[in-house]
Amino acid sequence: MKGCIAMEVNVVFQPEGKRVRIKSGSTILEAANLAGADLTSICGGKGKCGKCKVIVEKEKGNVSSIAEAENRFLSSAEISAGYRLACCTSVMGNVVVRIPEESRTGRQRLQVEGIETPVKLEPLVKKYFVKLQGPTLKDPRSDVDRLLDELLVQYGLENLELTYDLVQRLPFILRDSGWEVTVVMRDNEIISLEPGDTTDRIFGYAVDIGTTKLAGYLLDLITGKVIAAGSAMNPQIPYGEDVVTRITYAMKGIKELKELQRAVVGGLNQILADLLEKTGVKREEVYEMTAVGNTAMHHLFLKLNPKFLALSPYTPVLRKEISVNAKRVGVKINSRSYVHVLPVIAGFVGADNVAVILATEIYKRSELCLALDVGTNTEIVLGNKDEMLVCSCASGPAFEGAHIKHGMRAATGAIEKVRIDPETLEVKYWTIDDAKPRGICGSALVDVLAEMLKAGVIDATGTMNKELNSPRLRVCEGVPEFVLAWKKETSIGDDIVVTQRDVRELQLAKAAMNTGAMTLMRKKGVTEKDIDIVFIAGAFGSYIDPESSTVIGMHPEFPLEKVKVVGNAAGTGARMALVSKTCRKTAEEIHGKIRYVELAAEPCFQAEFMNSTFMPYADLNRFPRTSELLRKLGRYPKKPIPTLPCK
Amino acid sequence: MKGCIAMEVNVVFQPEGKRVRIKSGSTILEAANLAGADLTSICGGKGKCGKCKVIVEKEKGNVSSIAEAENRFLSSAEISAGYRLACCTSVMGNVVVRIPEESRTGRQRLQVEGIETPVKLEPLVKKYFVKLQGPTLKDPRSDVDRLLDELLVQYGLENLELTYDLVQRLPFILRDSGWEVTVVMRDNEIISLEPGDTTDRIFGYAVDIGTTKLAGYLLDLITGKVIAAGSAMNPQIPYGEDVVTRITYAMKGIKELKELQRAVVGGLNQILADLLEKTGVKREEVYEMTAVGNTAMHHLFLKLNPKFLALSPYTPVLRKEISVNAKRVGVKINSRSYVHVLPVIAGFVGADNVAVILATEIYKRSELCLALDVGTNTEIVLGNKDEMLVCSCASGPAFEGAHIKHGMRAATGAIEKVRIDPETLEVKYWTIDDAKPRGICGSALVDVLAEMLKAGVIDATGTMNKELNSPRLRVCEGVPEFVLAWKKETSIGDDIVVTQRDVRELQLAKAAMNTGAMTLMRKKGVTEKDIDIVFIAGAFGSYIDPESSTVIGMHPEFPLEKVKVVGNAAGTGARMALVSKTCRKTAEEIHGKIRYVELAAEPCFQAEFMNSTFMPYADLNRFPRTSELLRKLGRYPKKPIPTLPCK
Repeated sequence: MKGCIAMEVNVVFQPEGKRVRIKSGSTILEAANLAGADLTSICGGKGKCGKCKVIVEKEKGNVSSIAEAENRFLSSAEISAGYRLACCTSVMGNVVVRIPEESRTGRQRLQVEGIETPVKLEPLVKKYFVKLQGPTLKDPRSDVDRLLDELLVQYGLENLELTYDLVQRLPFILRDSGWEVTVVMRDNEIISLEPGDTTDRIFGYAVDIGTTKLAGYLLDLITGKVIAAGSAMNPQIPYGEDVVTRITYAMKGIKELKELQRAVVGGLNQILADLLEKTGVKREEVYEMTAVGNTAMHHLFLKLNPKFLALSPYTPVLRKEISVNAKRVGVKINSRSYVHVLPVIAGFVGADNVAVILATEIYKRSELCLALDVGTNTEIVLGNKDEMLVCSCASGPAFEGAHIKHGMRAATGAIEKVRIDPETLEVKYWTIDDAKPRGICGSALVDVLAEMLKAGVIDATGTMNKELNSPRLRVCEGVPEFVLAWKKETSIGDDIVVTQRDVRELQLAKAAMNTGAMTLMRKKGVTEKDIDIVFIAGAFGSYIDPESSTVIGMHPEFPLEKVKVVGNAAGTGARMALVSKTCRKTAEEIHGKIRYVELAAEPCFQAEFMNSTFMPYADLNRFPRTSELLRKLGRYPKKPIPTLPCK
Repeated sequence: MKGCIAMEVNVVFQPEGKRVRIKSGSTILEAANLAGADLTSICGGKGKCGKCKVIVEKEKGNVSSIAEAENRFLSSAEISAGYRLACCTSVMGNVVVRIPEESRTGRQRLQVEGIETPVKLEPLVKKYFVKLQGPTLKDPRSDVDRLLDELLVQYGLENLELTYDLVQRLPFILRDSGWEVTVVMRDNEIISLEPGDTTDRIFGYAVDIGTTKLAGYLLDLITGKVIAAGSAMNPQIPYGEDVVTRITYAMKGIKELKELQRAVVGGLNQILADLLEKTGVKREEVYEMTAVGNTAMHHLFLKLNPKFLALSPYTPVLRKEISVNAKRVGVKINSRSYVHVLPVIAGFVGADNVAVILATEIYKRSELCLALDVGTNTEIVLGNKDEMLVCSCASGPAFEGAHIKHGMRAATGAIEKVRIDPETLEVKYWTIDDAKPRGICGSALVDVLAEMLKAGVIDATGTMNKELNSPRLRVCEGVPEFVLAWKKETSIGDDIVVTQRDVRELQLAKAAMNTGAMTLMRKKGVTEKDIDIVFIAGAFGSYIDPESSTVIGMHPEFPLEKVKVVGNAAGTGARMALVSKTCRKTAEEIHGKIRYVELAAEPCFQAEFMNSTFMPYADLNRFPRTSELLRKLGRYPKKPIPTLPCK
């Protein structure tokens, strides 16, 4: 084919949805590297490790036939399921490729870390060991009575409930165990009976169901400590990146709703399976699960039809907390145990927000607090123990790396921190595990915007300065872009860049968040100086630089000592509810102190949003520290930015 | 074939288990009449009514081929299911025939009538009608909150539970009904939501699961009244007539246990289906069921393995009351409703006995009471509000007509009352509906024994006096029998007789009962004169003559004014529990006052049983009134009966 014009083909990687154009004949691994898709390759594409397994989902005819190496590493079951090794498979036309969780970078930094809020250990699930005397003609009590009587005498437990199927199995459990059993109780329901003494093994699973990412924590309920944590992409992503698209899909019918429900439960089960394997805990030893998520995720997880969430007046089916048998939800923990889902607040303020309030303890503080939970939707809380205003901003998944050319998860090789020399425009970056860079994760995206602003690569409107005389700033197919890392430094065989489109995407996201915060402040009649503590939470972890987020105006400007970055606080809240009855009660009570603010209905919304698209903000008087910094760097806007008035 | 020796074949009728030998070539209807099996035939065997449908279960090759009339009355589905018309089908060899419930005598007297014990109406299931305001942007409360808030405001209902599947359906129920719904509550659980106002329709189903017979009552839970009642044979009979045989069958494995469970639930569902059809009540309007039965029936109904009931020390799995979702049990009432099964007392004293104690109110009386619940097992209670001794006697199903040559259910044509002239031995009998007699039901069997004793047809040992000079007393194939009704008077084309074997069968049954009563009295240290009230309960209804039962010594002798015949008191107790929360609480509390007596472990048991086989009893001093009567009639035993001493 030498001499022919090389054709280009499109490769889409699921579940992240990354797209790339690449020369026909390239391998899937090359395409994945180019796209910044998260795919393991230990041997570097030599067909020697068998780790880069992928599934060709669409247009299977557009790839090369099975190579010898693939026959060596793939089972026949895998081959018939469409598995291929990415390094051995060339693309000859457009394809859609799925990267299974197993082929993702193992050393991914957990996007699950969050603040540890101390909480009194009082899990709902407890175990009691009893030794019974077998029946005699003088003591022919029923098996149930024998057990319950002993629990009363020995532990003072009364009014216990025993589920019907355990009653049915009881005679055999008692006799097979030689009348020595461990009783597993959840509140006052006996959920399991185990032969012998197993009182030292009680585990629980807490999850945060994000629109984009799932986080799962395996806890030892005797110590209350996390023993393993993991995360995965939400398998619902192929059905729509945002909640509205997924709701629309679920509205088609019960089949579609079930499909979405099974997808997310499958993801949570997969994370759990990994955690169990890692820790040696058995599935049957996990006796409870708690879950948080935004209202749409909450509804989809519970198979509640989200139709009315999408239609004005955006009514949820269920706001209260609910405990459902794990089997009915499909979660693979002990089959007689429960999944406890925390309450939501409103159509667009979910259980994840309740969890953030739990984790940050805003509900019991005297200080006035502002909390931003950054995600595909960013929920904002303003208040204290007396009252809390909350709102939700459709910020989109940009800061989670989606729709960003070289955005990626915080895994090995992700650029996580960036500094740009304002004089030379030389870039200094730090990567996870000090590996060669292969993409940019959330914390670095915040940095990049701030650093580009400070270095004059972009101006207050976010426009790249094409006049800048630097090889790092160039125009590619008409779109300006800034090179963060040169091809020779990266592991993807290409430069890592931030494009003008990326900047716009991030700008809209940060504007949405700032609008929410500003609106709540106006609504409550307070200004920046009235606020005592600012919490920044979000799945992109504890790595955000609050100075950078201030410079870009992701939120109003506060003295840095007031800002606390709390990581995945929603996950923290889910864990707190898992280990504490009182926390569950609090979660339910929080509702009474909440006032939901529908942003779109606020008269100032449009103006505030426009003002917030500037970096840091149209009215620079609200960002005095940042103004001072920009002035010092000579980046203070030469012309005043037109500020839209708020009626 | 004229001139040939007519061959005889055996026909067995299920579910009653009746057997008959009949000439080859006879119709199944003729065999049924001869056997006294309960089979409807309106046209009298002319092939004109199509009512005598039966199913040939075994040896289908031994019957004649389908006749024209059958093609007219039977659907092709019925024909392929093995249905035949009994009057058109001749038997050429041994066959087993099932008489489906639909072909049983419609005018059967309900064997379900029992005492009405007044009870305060406080059913667990209640309905509340609410009109809701739909959601607005100003009031976007969740659907669940909207409903629960209204129930609190309007009816003061708090802490309500809403099952997961109702939460899932709620948004559609509310919107489809225009926000006007009726909430069906059981205790504090919402079990159903119905469009519009249905508060005037609340029904419940109470059942008594007897070893031989099932009784079912459909109640209006608003008035507390029975609106229809029905009964059927227990479909478990083919698996064994007595509980031990059925337990043995169930012990074979889970498949067999399920089979027995499905059989009895099928029977209860069939009775209910009939009651619903009769009353126009819909299945979904039946919101609760209560059930009583002996401990073996209780275990089989709940699919609890009865293995340990059959092995010493006869331990039940469950003694306490239990409420189980109707669907899990398989009962076809409202699918979200519950079946409440009353508590049992011990391995051989069941929930039916608890129900009898409820119905007779022994548990709260100061008077000393004796209660006999006559059935395949007869349970006896002796006591009052302070303490109750109970025991169970394996009396067998003889008084229910089983194993009695011409025994039958209390249906049209059953002889229900008998008088024999002591001089002429002429018989006077009364039949149900004044129809031509076709068999003898329970109440008449008690009469027959007493009348034959008084007339000298049998002596105190139960032996028929072959010396008696009467055409009614004859010997047939070596077995003496007494003719109650001549062939010309009956509808079965044959004489209706009581055989010496029948007498023995009944004698053993009555001896078992008397032994139980005598043993409890000895145990408690009381005699007949200490007892204030005697209750005689039993499925054979309110028709027993207490004078007759005294004469045969079915129980100790008491002044007649002390004896109350209370019919199916177990059914009464089930109905009381259906309409009253307090009754359920009482049923659970009764256990604390009960002392179970294991008859077989009593040193006197054997001697007492031997003494009780005599009629009325070996020691005639204990039956002064009966002695006086027999003396007057010249039937007082010439030689004293040897009384076995009680150590």
